[in-house]
Amino acid sequence: MKAQDIDSCGQSRVAFTVIEGGVTAPRGYRAAAISCGIKNPEATRLDLALITSDFPTITDAVFTTNKVRAACVRVCQQNMKNGDARAIIANSGNANACTGVQGIQDAKAMCKATAEALGILQRQVLVCSTGIIGMNMPIQRITPRVAELASKLTHDGNEDASRAIMTSDTKPKSYAIEVPLPKGGSFRIGGIAKGAGMICPNMATMLSFITTDAKISRDELKRAMRFAVDQSFNRITIDGDTSTNDTVIVMTNGQAEAAPIKKGSPEIEIFRCALQKVMMELAKMIVGDGERVTKFVEIRVRNARTQADAKKAAEAVAKSLLVKCSFNGSDPNWGRIIHAVGYSGARIREELIDIYFGGIIACKGGLTSKTPVGDLEKVVKEPRFSVTIDLNSGTAHHIVYTTDLSEAYVDFNSSEYSAAIHAKRQKGLV
Amino acid sequence: MKAQDIDSCGQSRVAFTVIEGGVTAPRGYRAAAISCGIKNPEATRLDLALITSDFPTITDAVFTTNKVRAACVRVCQQNMKNGDARAIIANSGNANACTGVQGIQDAKAMCKATAEALGILQRQVLVCSTGIIGMNMPIQRITPRVAELASKLTHDGNEDASRAIMTSDTKPKSYAIEVPLPKGGSFRIGGIAKGAGMICPNMATMLSFITTDAKISRDELKRAMRFAVDQSFNRITIDGDTSTNDTVIVMTNGQAEAAPIKKGSPEIEIFRCALQKVMMELAKMIVGDGERVTKFVEIRVRNARTQADAKKAAEAVAKSLLVKCSFNGSDPNWGRIIHAVGYSGARIREELIDIYFGGIIACKGGLTSKTPVGDLEKVVKEPRFSVTIDLNSGTAHHIVYTTDLSEAYVDFNSSEYSAAIHAKRQKGLV
Repeated sequence: MKAQDIDSCGQSRVAFTVIEGGVTAPRGYRAAAISCGIKNPEATRLDLALITSDFPTITDAVFTTNKVRAACVRVCQQNMKNGDARAIIANSGNANACTGVQGIQDAKAMCKATAEALGILQRQVLVCSTGIIGMNMPIQRITPRVAELASKLTHDGNEDASRAIMTSDTKPKSYAIEVPLPKGGSFRIGGIAKGAGMICPNMATMLSFITTDAKISRDELKRAMRFAVDQSFNRITIDGDTSTNDTVIVMTNGQAEAAPIKKGSPEIEIFRCALQKVMMELAKMIVGDGERVTKFVEIRVRNARTQADAKKAAEAVAKSLLVKCSFNGSDPNWGRIIHAVGYSGARIREELIDIYFGGIIACKGGLTSKTPVGDLEKVVKEPRFSVTIDLNSGTAHHIVYTTDLSEAYVDFNSSEYSAAIHAKRQKGLV
Repeated sequence: MKAQDIDSCGQSRVAFTVIEGGVTAPRGYRAAAISCGIKNPEATRLDLALITSDFPTITDAVFTTNKVRAACVRVCQQNMKNGDARAIIANSGNANACTGVQGIQDAKAMCKATAEALGILQRQVLVCSTGIIGMNMPIQRITPRVAELASKLTHDGNEDASRAIMTSDTKPKSYAIEVPLPKGGSFRIGGIAKGAGMICPNMATMLSFITTDAKISRDELKRAMRFAVDQSFNRITIDGDTSTNDTVIVMTNGQAEAAPIKKGSPEIEIFRCALQKVMMELAKMIVGDGERVTKFVEIRVRNARTQADAKKAAEAVAKSLLVKCSFNGSDPNWGRIIHAVGYSGARIREELIDIYFGGIIACKGGLTSKTPVGDLEKVVKEPRFSVTIDLNSGTAHHIVYTTDLSEAYVDFNSSEYSAAIHAKRQKGLV
């Protein structure tokens, strides 16, 4: 057993231990994955994952706000009416988005095959897809394989499942913790996620599946979920630029060896904090993933007039192409940062703004500080650093996470559609 | 004399002839430029321009909406109170932004030196700067040279002036037309502009100086200016992401050999259309400039519910990194376009959306069309093409202009600040 860590969230502090196993770390969950040839016709890469609870669950989910919604998202939203999912089936390689009636049929067929293989209701299956937009699912290569996939379910299946949902991610993303409760016993929370390896996070499809064995009511789960998503994934999916497929699912099956967590109790606060911890770790893995990202940057806006002002300023900086390019070149270009703050829509006074790289001041009261540029460069040459923008106009804060923009990003993202079509054609698939 | 062209704007059509001379093409204007060593310490590049009217003017100007405003913008806004400017002095190499009290003093010193050299009032001088943010102006290298600059003023000075305002632009931008009036005589409009060579236009400082000899009232000039800017420069400075220094100035000195243009007359419509033509040509030059931009793309949104919806959808597509990367790779990736429309905030119905590359349909009713991908690739391989997004939900249209995002863009923009500081240090300037 590893040493305990302590994390703070808001006023609270929670002690926990990082454990192995991701979504299968909590009691009563299994997972598996196979290769169906969705990602590549040779079927050499895992691309279909299944996660199940052996016990009834309370399930909550948050979906994309994009008005163009993938077929799988629509089917999930229907199946979430009772919030008692027992399984998540997820594929990579095809997003099943912009696929019309056929797409809905395909998503339902995946649920049906899963329900039959597991002996559960079709509406107890959630389906997620990620990959290219606008091509029909190769469904004939998926549904006939679901029984085989179900037969492979195991408590050790987390690694495979986390790999099977990867698209341009360079590594699987998985995290789990065990949290002791003050009155005895403990609960576990685990999760997996995918983003996209080298790209600015606000443009990638984000999937995250989280399991817990905590004994908690539906209302409290929903409340904790909304809070935790807002503090984590919403800090990287900036400005509503969510993809057609973004989905976060949290299931709890109440199998923890501990007393139920009651409304208004201190344990609720611990649960909320623990869920936030898991989501935040996964969110940071998404942002930081990939050889092509060379910088992970925390943008902190302090002392804005309102929360909305803080958010606008932080997101404008985090999204600015010119700021992201300067991070790539390890260039402490605070002029571009104040420029982005200026057009963000936040209410600011230029002459009050201070900007820091790490803890070192670069701009004081809207003017260049006397800090030698070498000291600032030392900070931005690091692979991880923070930029603090103090607006000195109020008391509201906001933090978002961003990356640099690298040349390789552009190269990587310049020919997805044609390449996919041509690959299919070579294999005689279109 | 060249053959006449005809351009339409709204319901109107205006006949005109393209002429040489840019800002010095209209009667009564002169221009000049010198090298002061602001752009490079060796003073081998033109970096200080002067444009004057030999006669009193009516002047209108539009400035950045960025809340961080350069010192020169603040001084211009003061000097615009009477709207009777006689001169524009403009430098490149330093933006005089985030420079505080010293910056204001420097901008005023440039106006004062110009007024003295020309024998006009200080408030009749407008001052514009473009370049790096957050460094004080090397004012001791500028003001002592203004008299020399004024002595070089000539009717042939347009070429030098247009070069002196360039920053990362790869070529000067200049355009002028002569417009005959139905009742006899003609007027001329000319202009110069700068953007930034290789970058997405919404991030560059944009300056444009426009002169005309039309006899027109202040109210009518203002009205025509607002209309023309909205149809041209505002189509490339997307979403209020204007720089700290953006400025468009229009001067008229009434020296045309024609009768005054009266309110409500057909000639007003001709003037408005002609002004829009000049601004649009300059705007297109800004977007299309530079070796590093490989594509110039017109994004047309059709049949939106409202004008606001059309604008949101067009701007989201024009700004999307993933869309711009796919243009760079000549990839007809309509999935990324519909994705951007989906998160734009525009009210849309996915199943009604059609997307065309050039005139060729790629997506019909939110689904892939049957068009062979080779036909679509042929369009997006061209250096200039249009993308039409038909929302089929109303009658509102909007057009914006954008470019691809190239690897060279990232490289070019990754070390401006450090490089500038280090260059100064090597020369013993800091």
